[in-house]
Amino acid sequence: GRKVLIVYAHQEPKSLNGSLKRVAVEELSKQGCSVTVSDLYAMQFEPRATRNDIVGCLHNSEEFNYGVEAWEAYKRGGLSNDLIEEQKKVQEADLMIFQFPLYWFSMPAIMKGWMDRVLVQGFAHEFPNCYDSGLLKNKLALFSFTTGGSEEMYAKGGISGDIRYLLWPMQHGIMHFCGVKVLAPHICFAPEYVSEEKRKEMLIAWAQRLKTLWKEEPINCSPEWYFK
Amino acid sequence: GRKVLIVYAHQEPKSLNGSLKRVAVEELSKQGCSVTVSDLYAMQFEPRATRNDIVGCLHNSEEFNYGVEAWEAYKRGGLSNDLIEEQKKVQEADLMIFQFPLYWFSMPAIMKGWMDRVLVQGFAHEFPNCYDSGLLKNKLALFSFTTGGSEEMYAKGGISGDIRYLLWPMQHGIMHFCGVKVLAPHICFAPEYVSEEKRKEMLIAWAQRLKTLWKEEPINCSPEWYFK
Repeated sequence: GRKVLIVYAHQEPKSLNGSLKRVAVEELSKQGCSVTVSDLYAMQFEPRATRNDIVGCLHNSEEFNYGVEAWEAYKRGGLSNDLIEEQKKVQEADLMIFQFPLYWFSMPAIMKGWMDRVLVQGFAHEFPNCYDSGLLKNKLALFSFTTGGSEEMYAKGGISGDIRYLLWPMQHGIMHFCGVKVLAPHICFAPEYVSEEKRKEMLIAWAQRLKTLWKEEPINCSPEWYFK
Repeated sequence: GRKVLIVYAHQEPKSLNGSLKRVAVEELSKQGCSVTVSDLYAMQFEPRATRNDIVGCLHNSEEFNYGVEAWEAYKRGGLSNDLIEEQKKVQEADLMIFQFPLYWFSMPAIMKGWMDRVLVQGFAHEFPNCYDSGLLKNKLALFSFTTGGSEEMYAKGGISGDIRYLLWPMQHGIMHFCGVKVLAPHICFAPEYVSEEKRKEMLIAWAQRLKTLWKEEPINCSPEWYFK
């Protein structure tokens, strides 16, 4: 059975994001996948990259460089326990699903902190092992999110620009950089402004997509896909 | 005298980011500006958007919706004190400078949390008051940051793509959305891989730019600037 990690960032289980997460757990479990959820708010996940992430002495205590210290700590097994736990989950996963409401054209800070702190050098990448040779190659990622703005606002030529523009830092800058292949995003536009009926359809569409997810081809994660 | 708010996110005062921040405080103060710094790590600024941001009763305690609750709390003066403090600083500022190391094609989570929590509806925007009519119009913003990757990697056609691609969510999606006009970014490429001499030149160049900053015209914050 395949292994899936769902990194989930919503405060409210009754939200559409909460329902989308539940639908994914149910559908993927039904398929025989083993599904793990990192429920970031429930875990009170720490988003700040600080000295607390390093157990024991620093590599250079004169001048704190987070990237270098996390890298060195990773190599000697000296990262804080919460990071080691998340890295184990990533290591085992065939697919990572990121489920969140779009905050300011990006993920909520609590999820950005997960990226900042979990995907350390040595674990997820290590020059020249980045992009197609990143250390997390052979894994898949999928960004599943809800928006405040409507589909028209996020159209090419719309006031907020093509939604693909804002996917570049997340899909290419983070996932592709680590060697992860990216499946097409799953976007629920403006669920707060549609009927309960429409929201139910959104859940059904997600469950439906998941049924054939493993047959999907990753996107071509190059500038053409985003800015053609 | 003009008022400047520097939102600063680095753990180490001795870092280049720390020096860039100090240079800005010194040069702008010398010009007669009044300068305020939000030193996010030193403040242990909270990046997570949670129920703790709302003082007293919720608008809807059945189903927690952060955006709605923060909006309602703002209107009745019921946001947490740390947010009220930051909003006062924003309100008074003519210019906001964001100083940070680029983490994963974006700002560090602690700064993303500042955006998520401080720029609430009612304060920074309120439909239809967004983009050119955003509530923070008549203010300027400038993103000043350091990168890990080199200028070549961030060139058009380079492996990480034109650096402007990753500025879209921050400059357009956040600042422009709130009506803030954006000055050209200030980017120090790969300071960790250059000589001490070169790093000093980076500080001098920043001080030099700041001398004539108030004469600069904002960029044209539309897709053409980013993806032409």
